[in-house]
Order: sequence, then C-alpha cells, then structure tokens
Amino acid sequence: MDSDERYHMTADEFRRVGRSVIDWIADYYENIEGYPVMSQVKPGDIRAELPPLPPQQGESFDQVLEDVERIILPGVTHWQSPNFFAYFPANTSGPSILGELLSAGLGVQGMLWQTSPACTELETHVLDWLVEMMDLPEKYKSTSSGGGVIQDSASSASLCALLAGRERATAYASNEEGIHERLTAYASTQAHSSIEKAVKIAGIGSSNLRLIETDETYAMRPEALARQMFEDRQNGYTPCFVCATLGTTSSNGIDPLERIGPICRAEGVWLHVDAAMAGTAAICPEFRHLLRGLDYADSYCFNPHKWMFTNFDCDCFYVAERKALIDTLSILPEYLRNKSSETGQVIDYRDWQIPLGRRFRALKLWFVIRHYGIDGLQYHIREHVRLAQEFAGWIEQHPDFEIAAPAPLNLVCFRHKNGDIFNRELLDRLNQSGELYLTHTTLDGEFTLRLSVGQTHTEHRHVERAWTQIQQTAKVLENSE
Amino acid sequence: MDSDERYHMTADEFRRVGRSVIDWIADYYENIEGYPVMSQVKPGDIRAELPPLPPQQGESFDQVLEDVERIILPGVTHWQSPNFFAYFPANTSGPSILGELLSAGLGVQGMLWQTSPACTELETHVLDWLVEMMDLPEKYKSTSSGGGVIQDSASSASLCALLAGRERATAYASNEEGIHERLTAYASTQAHSSIEKAVKIAGIGSSNLRLIETDETYAMRPEALARQMFEDRQNGYTPCFVCATLGTTSSNGIDPLERIGPICRAEGVWLHVDAAMAGTAAICPEFRHLLRGLDYADSYCFNPHKWMFTNFDCDCFYVAERKALIDTLSILPEYLRNKSSETGQVIDYRDWQIPLGRRFRALKLWFVIRHYGIDGLQYHIREHVRLAQEFAGWIEQHPDFEIAAPAPLNLVCFRHKNGDIFNRELLDRLNQSGELYLTHTTLDGEFTLRLSVGQTHTEHRHVERAWTQIQQTAKVLENSE
Repeated sequence: MDSDERYHMTADEFRRVGRSVIDWIADYYENIEGYPVMSQVKPGDIRAELPPLPPQQGESFDQVLEDVERIILPGVTHWQSPNFFAYFPANTSGPSILGELLSAGLGVQGMLWQTSPACTELETHVLDWLVEMMDLPEKYKSTSSGGGVIQDSASSASLCALLAGRERATAYASNEEGIHERLTAYASTQAHSSIEKAVKIAGIGSSNLRLIETDETYAMRPEALARQMFEDRQNGYTPCFVCATLGTTSSNGIDPLERIGPICRAEGVWLHVDAAMAGTAAICPEFRHLLRGLDYADSYCFNPHKWMFTNFDCDCFYVAERKALIDTLSILPEYLRNKSSETGQVIDYRDWQIPLGRRFRALKLWFVIRHYGIDGLQYHIREHVRLAQEFAGWIEQHPDFEIAAPAPLNLVCFRHKNGDIFNRELLDRLNQSGELYLTHTTLDGEFTLRLSVGQTHTEHRHVERAWTQIQQTAKVLENSE
Repeated sequence: MDSDERYHMTADEFRRVGRSVIDWIADYYENIEGYPVMSQVKPGDIRAELPPLPPQQGESFDQVLEDVERIILPGVTHWQSPNFFAYFPANTSGPSILGELLSAGLGVQGMLWQTSPACTELETHVLDWLVEMMDLPEKYKSTSSGGGVIQDSASSASLCALLAGRERATAYASNEEGIHERLTAYASTQAHSSIEKAVKIAGIGSSNLRLIETDETYAMRPEALARQMFEDRQNGYTPCFVCATLGTTSSNGIDPLERIGPICRAEGVWLHVDAAMAGTAAICPEFRHLLRGLDYADSYCFNPHKWMFTNFDCDCFYVAERKALIDTLSILPEYLRNKSSETGQVIDYRDWQIPLGRRFRALKLWFVIRHYGIDGLQYHIREHVRLAQEFAGWIEQHPDFEIAAPAPLNLVCFRHKNGDIFNRELLDRLNQSGELYLTHTTLDGEFTLRLSVGQTHTEHRHVERAWTQIQQTAKVLENSE
C-alpha cells in the first residue's frame, strides 16, 4: 500500500481546531484575572491526572483541548496575568503569539543562510533596526564590524560572550588545545547566576569567577574590579572576561559602564554587558543614560522576551566584532558545506550560537515591532516605569514599609520594617491568596520583596490593588503576632 | 493618565487575525508543492525588500501578513515540502503546530517546578511515556534513578552529557577549579560536528577529541576505541566521554553499543548515545535492534523534532543518573529559592540544561502522541523506511548509479558512477530545478548524494518523481558532456 495521509490532521481539521485554539487563547486572556496567579497545586498533582500509559490509538483534538482546561490549567502559574509581579516579566502579545504560530507553521531551519535565507536576513535586519530604535553603538550593526543574533536566553548569550573572551585571551588556542592558562572572569556579586554557570561550562571554574563588591546602589565598584584584576595578574592569572550588568536580577542595579569600560579596554579583556530585562528601556530616549559607556562593550544582550511583548525565547545578542564570535564557535562539516556559505557573502547563524538548529524567531520580533511601532513600545514601557515609580512612592510614604534599593525603572525592592520572618510570611500569604504573585531576594542579608511591573496587561488598577493587599495582609499579620 | 490597553491587540482582533494565520498555514500546506523547494533568492534579496528603518507608528496586521507572502515566502526553503529530501527531516504536524501556539499563548516559564508545575510535570510524564513507547532502559524513567528532559537540540544534549562526563572524571572538581587534568573525549570520524563544538566549549580542546575510525558500514570500530583509550591513559590523559551515534548524519551509520558499552564501563567513562534522527525508529519494535546495548549508556538523546512530527525545538535527553547531571549544572541564587524546590520532591529543569528559562515544549509533544497514538506514529515511520528502501532498490538496479553506504532506515546515500564533478553538478541542477531538494556528504572521499525520507507528507509519488528526475537530469548531463 502507498504511503498516504492516514492519521495526519487534514487541512480542514486544522482550520477547525486551529480556530478553537485561537479562541481558547483569546478567552484565556479575557478571563485570566479569574485564576490564582501562582498555581496552587502540590507536587505530583498534575501527573496523578495523566494516564500512566500513552495511547495506542489516536485521540480527538477536542478531547486534548478539554484536558488542557481540566488537567493542565490548574498547574499553570499565570505569567501573563496583569497581577504577576514576580521574578522579571516574560511578557507576550497578540502579534508575538501569531509570529510564533507562523514560525511553527513554516517549520524552517535557520542554521545556515542556505537553509532558509529569509530566516537569516529578517533576523539580521530586525536586529539592525533595534540598534536604530535604541541608539545602540553603530558597531553592533551587521553593516559594520559586528552584528546581532537571536539567542534563546541571556544565559546562552553570556556563555557565547565568555567563550569569545576566553579564546581572545588565549590567542584562540583554548578551543583547540583545551585550557592551560589560569583564567579569571569577573562580575559583581549581584550578577546573574548564569555567569557562574557559564564559567563552569567553559572549564574556567567557579573559583576563578571573581565576584566584585558593589556600592550602596548594588552597582559594581570599578576600583574593586581594577584592584582584583591587578592582583590576579600579579598572581599569574589571565583575566579573560568581565560581565557588567544593567539592571541586576535582584534589584535592578546598574553597573557603571563608563568606568568599567576603560578598565577592560586597558586590560584587553572582553567586556560583556547583560541588560536582559532593563535593556528594553532604551527604546525611550529618557532612559538611555543607563546605557552610557556601552561603546566599550565587546558584546551586549537584552531580552525582548522579558519586557518587549515578545514570546520567550528571544534574546538579542550583539557583538562589536563578529569575527571574534565566529572564530570561537565555527565548525564546518562536509554535510553543511554549500555554495552560499563559501562566497562569504552570507551569515550562517549556526556559528553565532551553541546549538546547530534554530527556529525562525525573527518573525515574532518583526511582528511586534510592526504592530506596536516605536510609539506603541515607548508608550507601554513608560507606563510600566511610571506605575513602578508610583508604587515606590507609596512605599516611601508608608511608616511600616521601606524601599530596599534604588528603583531606576520598573522593579521596586521593599520590605516591611518587622524583619525577615515577618516579610517571609507576608510574601507567602500574598502568593497563597492567588490574587497576585511576588518573589523575593536578599539584599545586604535582609529578606526583600520585589514588585516587578512588566506584564503586557498590567494597568494602574492592578498595581493599586496589589498595594492594598500588601497593606491589608501586613495588618492582619501584625494583629496576629 | 492611567495605563491602558492602547496599542495592544484586542481580543477580537486576535480572534480575527489569528484565524487568518491559521488559514494561511492551512493554505500553505495545501499549496506547498507549488513552491520551489530550495529558495531561489540571492544573498541580500530579502533585506532589499525590507524598509531600512523600523516603523514609528504601528501597522495593520493584515499588511504584515501580506508582506509575509510577498517578501518572506520567496526566501523560505520549504522544509515541510514532501519533496524535501535534504539534510535530516525536521518534520512537523497539525497537532504540533497547535501545541506550539498554545505554549506561546500561555507564555509560562518552566525553569522551576514552582514557576509552572504543569510545565514540569507534563514534560516528565511524556518523557516517561516515551521510555515505554520505545522500550528504552527503565533507568531513564523519572521513577527510577534517571529521567528525561526536553532540550532545544541534540547539540545541547551532547554538551550537557559531555559536561557531566567531565565532572565525573574529575570528581566534580572541574566545575569549581577549572580544568587541570588532560582530558580526552571520543567519537567516531562520522559523529556529528556538535561533538567537536562541545569539547571546545567545555574547555577540553578539539585536539583532545579522538575521532575513532569506522568500518565499512561507517560504524565506530570498538577495538580502535579501546586501543586509543589505552594509549591515552598510558600518556597521562584522562578519558572522560564517549559519544556513540545511532544513525550518523552523513550516512546513518550505527555504532555497535553492545561492544562500545562494555569498554566505557570498564574504563568508567561516560557513554552518551546520540540517536538524534534514527532514535524515532524505536517506536516500531522491528527497528529496536538498532538500540541494542543502550543499557550501557549514561545518557541518550533523540529528536522528535526531526522525525516524529514535532516542531523544532524538541530533543528528548535521558540520563541514567539524574544526580550526576544536576550536580553538574545546578546553581541556586537567592531569587530562585522557593519552598517547593527545598522539599526535594520536585524537578527543577533549570538544573538539567544550559539556559535558565524554558518554554512549555511538552505540550506539542503531548499533542502529537495523543493525536497519532502509537499506531499512527508506527504507521508513518514504517512508511518512510519502506519508501527509502524502495528507492535504494531502484538505485541498486540501475547500471549508472550505486549505493554508497548501508541504508538501515530512511536515508539513502548514493552516487552516479561518473565521479565527483558529475555528481556535484547533478545535485546543483536538481536543487535549482526547485522540484526537490537533496544535500550531499563525502564518504571515503567521494562526493555522495543523500536522499532522506522523513517529511510528514512525503508519499510514494514524491519519492518516485524524485527518482525520475534524478535519472532524467543525469541523462541530460551525460549527453552534454
């Protein structure tokens, strides 16, 4: 018998159930405030609802969608809820969801220019657009010495940057010979955990990551960085990488690039700038002062999948010299050779990232930028910052609460004055209420609550209600003590 | 003024344009055979159509969709065409596309159990299902010592496996102290290029990757592996990792696990098995003999995003001892601490992969398995193998063509007897015709064409027409010589 279309979903069925999924998502966003923000299930609850064995015969898609509603939804923490103030945002939007859908439908591979030229060229083009939109250094453009690429996450971007720094510091010998030098890397005590993960992966070792102390704004102290590098050189180490952060995860601390940059340049050390969340603010001219000194950076990344209405995954990673990155990550087996690559006229993004394969992620970013325009993006970023600043004002004026760190943008770190145990209990009660979701950090050893404003549909009323609930819950707790 | 819904896509607009995208995709699949399989554009053609500057004001989504059709589509190489026989398949299907859509709509983060319990539990559950469906070693189940996780690609899975091997060989010291030992890794000359990339990334160095010779079936010679390891130990090296391949990229060579396994076990070296494409065949009992000896493997991966009708990215990565992987990749900053993780009762997949963030990729895999059932998956895998075998038979019977390697499954390596220049020209002409798309490799130094059968809608008539075109084009070429 011939191969045939048996078992496959027909085009008509795809149209019908595809509409159901579209409608389901639209309904979901319309009803999202009715769900507890943080899932209330206990470990094992979801698995207990799933059949132990996979189905022998295929099932109807309508049944699958029913199970999404019945089994999966209770186990979802609603990141897209306007009452989600936890971690950093991972916001999305209609045009982005449809970009992801179209990317899935086309199902192309973008590992080489040749494997789908539009996948590569749209990505290059949109990343050049973002340089314009955010007034980033000209050298990050593909038309200059550098260029941009979409990574899955800032973790992966940092790893790529670290590897390029490692290779530059070892005259591109580590890749071939393995690590022989005693290499060191640098980041502030507030830098993201992915930097520690990267130095482990790269074979440098976490004990050779120097965590530089920060000042009272939780920003790296440049003089401490310079001193540590000097000492390390004295002791026979080779510094290879500095990660400066614009907008640390704990408190949105801003490392001073204008002072860190010259130190790295003098030392010939790769400077990577991680602006995963805060970087999106550069869409507004009034926040660009936070990026001052970015000209010094060999590489830079920010995540449209955090605060720019674009589905995870979408990290924009820029390098000042693309050759350094490509020389670090390039491999060329025979089965990937092709005429286009050999001309040298095309970008093969395979050589700009850890994995080989890649999706058509530029589509969703293109859709978002075209749907909102610069005006729309600026409008919402400004609103989020304004809401966070208003919340910070309320905290400041309340006798029982205090601000725990400067709030330059959309993240407010705060605590009740009754100490760690009280704040921990306050957080638990708020999250268990299902009405909102906050997370915590520690700053100077003190348990600190974080309110991050960045979900697509968060409005004034949501922040206001969060503040009311924080006060009320604290009052109940005070009275029960 | 309050934050508001200005600029955002409304629910009604999302319903309307969402349907357009669904219909667009359905139309695309209905018309896909009308497009040239390999995009015919030249470098820069796509960018030339895009405006140099991003839009200040938002644009209508209908306009965006028009531009997809007008600008993007000519630059797309149609991986989902039934006439796509290049590289390895990256097939997709209706249920998978809708799973990706739903994942984008929910927009959750799965880095911790806590950040969306269903995202973690469904993933664990479906990966346990696959162990059942494919009769994989019981130890890969989450209910045993191991477990499965979805990675973006086999490249990343191999890197994670290599890192775990590196740590085990250095008593978990490399992560902290950096690499001091002279480590070696092993794979056959036919292993995927990602292994070379991984040893570079991990700081081991490509010169310490031993490429072991293969036999006449392009399978690793176990005795050569044993000899090389012995020599390396004699010379003061510490072997830390062996990658065996089931279904090499060039020719679907099958490394003999039953003989490689005992060598690795005797040496205490981490054995990773990369079955990225071929692994899906294990859904059919009659192909499971290819996996014989998998019990020896510390880790294993295969890609539903290649041959199991599931959108890229979806690599299933299994480890026999999850502790070894977690001890290698775990990091725990304060801002990610939470009660659920501290109970030890939950899986935090952040510690099973390179990046921190992760999408809800289990949805699409769950949708695929439920839509097709085991029966449907088996049916189509068998059909693809049958079609490839039939094609191999035609090649064998033709006086001017020859088979270049054993074809155990769905990949046929072949060449015309007129030599490299002829075959290269034959490939170019076939691809430029737009009627089908093949790629090449070299085997024993000879230019070799590859026909890989694995796209969702490839039927007998497509393979038959490909063969007709190959013969006709060869005939034209012969006559023009």
